[in-house]
Amino acid sequence: MATKRSPKTRVQASVLLGALKDVLEIIEARNTIPVLSHVLIEVEDQQLTVMASDLDQWATRNCATADRDGPDSREWLTSLQAFSVCLPAKKLAAVLTELDSEAMVRIEVPSAWSKEWSGQATVSAGAARFKLNALPVTEFPAPPPIDLDGFFELPCSQLGDVLAAVKHAISTEETRYYLNGVFMHPVDLDLRFATTDGHRLARLRMDGPVGSTSYPAVIVARKTVAVLEKLLAHADKAAKGSEGEPPVVLIECNATGSRLQFTMPTEGDGEVTLIAKTIDGEFPDYGRVIPSDPKERVTVARSSLAAVVKRVAVMAEGETRIVKFAFDEDRLTVSARSIDVGEASEDLACEYRGPAFELGFNSKYLLAALGAIASDVVALRCDGDGASAVRIAGWEDEDEVGALLQVLMPARV
Amino acid sequence: MATKRSPKTRVQASVLLGALKDVLEIIEARNTIPVLSHVLIEVEDQQLTVMASDLDQWATRNCATADRDGPDSREWLTSLQAFSVCLPAKKLAAVLTELDSEAMVRIEVPSAWSKEWSGQATVSAGAARFKLNALPVTEFPAPPPIDLDGFFELPCSQLGDVLAAVKHAISTEETRYYLNGVFMHPVDLDLRFATTDGHRLARLRMDGPVGSTSYPAVIVARKTVAVLEKLLAHADKAAKGSEGEPPVVLIECNATGSRLQFTMPTEGDGEVTLIAKTIDGEFPDYGRVIPSDPKERVTVARSSLAAVVKRVAVMAEGETRIVKFAFDEDRLTVSARSIDVGEASEDLACEYRGPAFELGFNSKYLLAALGAIASDVVALRCDGDGASAVRIAGWEDEDEVGALLQVLMPARV
Repeated sequence: MATKRSPKTRVQASVLLGALKDVLEIIEARNTIPVLSHVLIEVEDQQLTVMASDLDQWATRNCATADRDGPDSREWLTSLQAFSVCLPAKKLAAVLTELDSEAMVRIEVPSAWSKEWSGQATVSAGAARFKLNALPVTEFPAPPPIDLDGFFELPCSQLGDVLAAVKHAISTEETRYYLNGVFMHPVDLDLRFATTDGHRLARLRMDGPVGSTSYPAVIVARKTVAVLEKLLAHADKAAKGSEGEPPVVLIECNATGSRLQFTMPTEGDGEVTLIAKTIDGEFPDYGRVIPSDPKERVTVARSSLAAVVKRVAVMAEGETRIVKFAFDEDRLTVSARSIDVGEASEDLACEYRGPAFELGFNSKYLLAALGAIASDVVALRCDGDGASAVRIAGWEDEDEVGALLQVLMPARV
Repeated sequence: MATKRSPKTRVQASVLLGALKDVLEIIEARNTIPVLSHVLIEVEDQQLTVMASDLDQWATRNCATADRDGPDSREWLTSLQAFSVCLPAKKLAAVLTELDSEAMVRIEVPSAWSKEWSGQATVSAGAARFKLNALPVTEFPAPPPIDLDGFFELPCSQLGDVLAAVKHAISTEETRYYLNGVFMHPVDLDLRFATTDGHRLARLRMDGPVGSTSYPAVIVARKTVAVLEKLLAHADKAAKGSEGEPPVVLIECNATGSRLQFTMPTEGDGEVTLIAKTIDGEFPDYGRVIPSDPKERVTVARSSLAAVVKRVAVMAEGETRIVKFAFDEDRLTVSARSIDVGEASEDLACEYRGPAFELGFNSKYLLAALGAIASDVVALRCDGDGASAVRIAGWEDEDEVGALLQVLMPARV
């Protein structure tokens, strides 16, 4: 009688490591629930799928395992047997990092394997043999069922750019949890992305892609944004140099907008899916804090202004590094003072007609705002009383489609 | 009556920043004595010298200021007036970092300047103007007077290689302060460099350069080693691509060996000098811990062994990441076990004839030892009882000139 063969699969070290890296972002450094520091590896036919979760998000990435029609094809027929295994994520990644990237890695579980099984799975490559303590597959938290109800598509690079432009103003205050993400919502035929932490605001408008106008308003959590940015960049990079259309991300949601699902291509014909809970809260009516008709308007070269602020801020104090802006006819003087170290000031040409006035800025916020703007020239608009909110946008009208509008509360100087 | 002109000088931002970086290494992140977070800048004729100190070491670096025969030569005649100023080191470096590297930086003190003066020195470049709080020059600790009594020379790259080969075994235990450095001492016609932390030892022999045989035995402090490595690498890099002899470091000392002075060339015809107190203590007679005639000898490919140890150590526990070595006829099995995560093992071919035996190693120490060896093959020699010290050296006889001999105490497994 033939003994039952143990389920196994074979995959190239670099391929598995690439898949792992896509989902590892989700795993927290410390987990009180052991299984959340594990990845679920599912093998079926010639596909291997890796999944990680933090109970708010699930990332799934598939990749191709080795062809069974290799020199040892008889043995590899056994990989027809589907199996799954729950392995410690960071240790597995560390092992793969130390292997030759070309090495073929064999993952094997005992013939007595079942979904309830726990014990040691074998990961081997050449002479190297690792036994990793596996948890029962049944312990791994399943992603929530989603009835996908709405969807739209965007090029990966476009969604990446949008998130990069607004993410700096996401609040980190846990008590105002509804500000801890990007508010994505349709307005008429627009799709808008807004963030604010109470001191500053960023809002980006785009022509709503097909399907987005009936999409519910959702708050995409900060962590989801961070994971998405990595995945979108990977997808975009993987497609570089290849023929054809740039890669597209499919953004689906359920009817209430409490669950989102992002699906995009990845290296080697694979696909990566991110399922994320959205923040369950109401984003404030941010339109009220945008000054509608500020009196004064200054335009200035963006990169020069950023360089001046960085230099002057060296002499500014504390975490906020407040710098003072003094506006006069076609001249802006940026200055800062520190009791311990000294002071700094620098003049810069700008386009301004109006009475002289002064403003203070948190230089970190200002530099983040300037960094998010693509245009060569920025326009600052405010009431010139040093107290009311300042609008910052690119040279083009900030209400134009695609333009980023930012609002900064001035600091006292 | 002409008013007295204020002393000033002019230097290119990147040149001054390069000079600052050479001496900044010495400055501690936190200083209870304010002047120790400052640099002393001395300007005389067309030279600018930057000095930093931590009271145990003094680094001095000179560089050329702007030629006075420029378009504004009349003004720059004033720079004939020598002056010095004590400025906050990290703020000055931060300011320079934010300037265009090509920018000409002007440093100016008031006309009332004296060595006792304190107040605001002006650092300006283009429209940017910084006032830095300066301390009186008289507060800056002068380097100790040295009666230089002995000296020898080495190519910068050679001294850098020697320090890199032995530094990993420097002890960090403050109670055994006499182990907190590199013991440099002549033996007959040799010059030897030794380090140990009680668990491991590294010793390098070289043919003593002219002058070194009468040099006193000294312990070069860990921090001096770190600063030296940077300076030597800079000197070596600056000389790359230029014609002529490779740069040489002059190593001088006083009669007792309590003070060392290292002098080496740097970019742009400059020179950098490091004066360092040596560690006042007696380095132990380390020769006693080197097993003189171990019974067993194993030779193995160095890079393969390092790769195997790194892989297997992924599954080892704790800070020490102990791995087990089992030697048998021409085979070495490296293994490790972690209760939480699992286990690892890998076989490796080696050259060994003798009875089977086992050894444990702190894998971090072992990897550091293997990393310091240049040869392709390493020889391990020990008594095969798993308890006595293990000699590790390159394939060549470890008593050969230039060879690095290391001793490792095995760990319990």
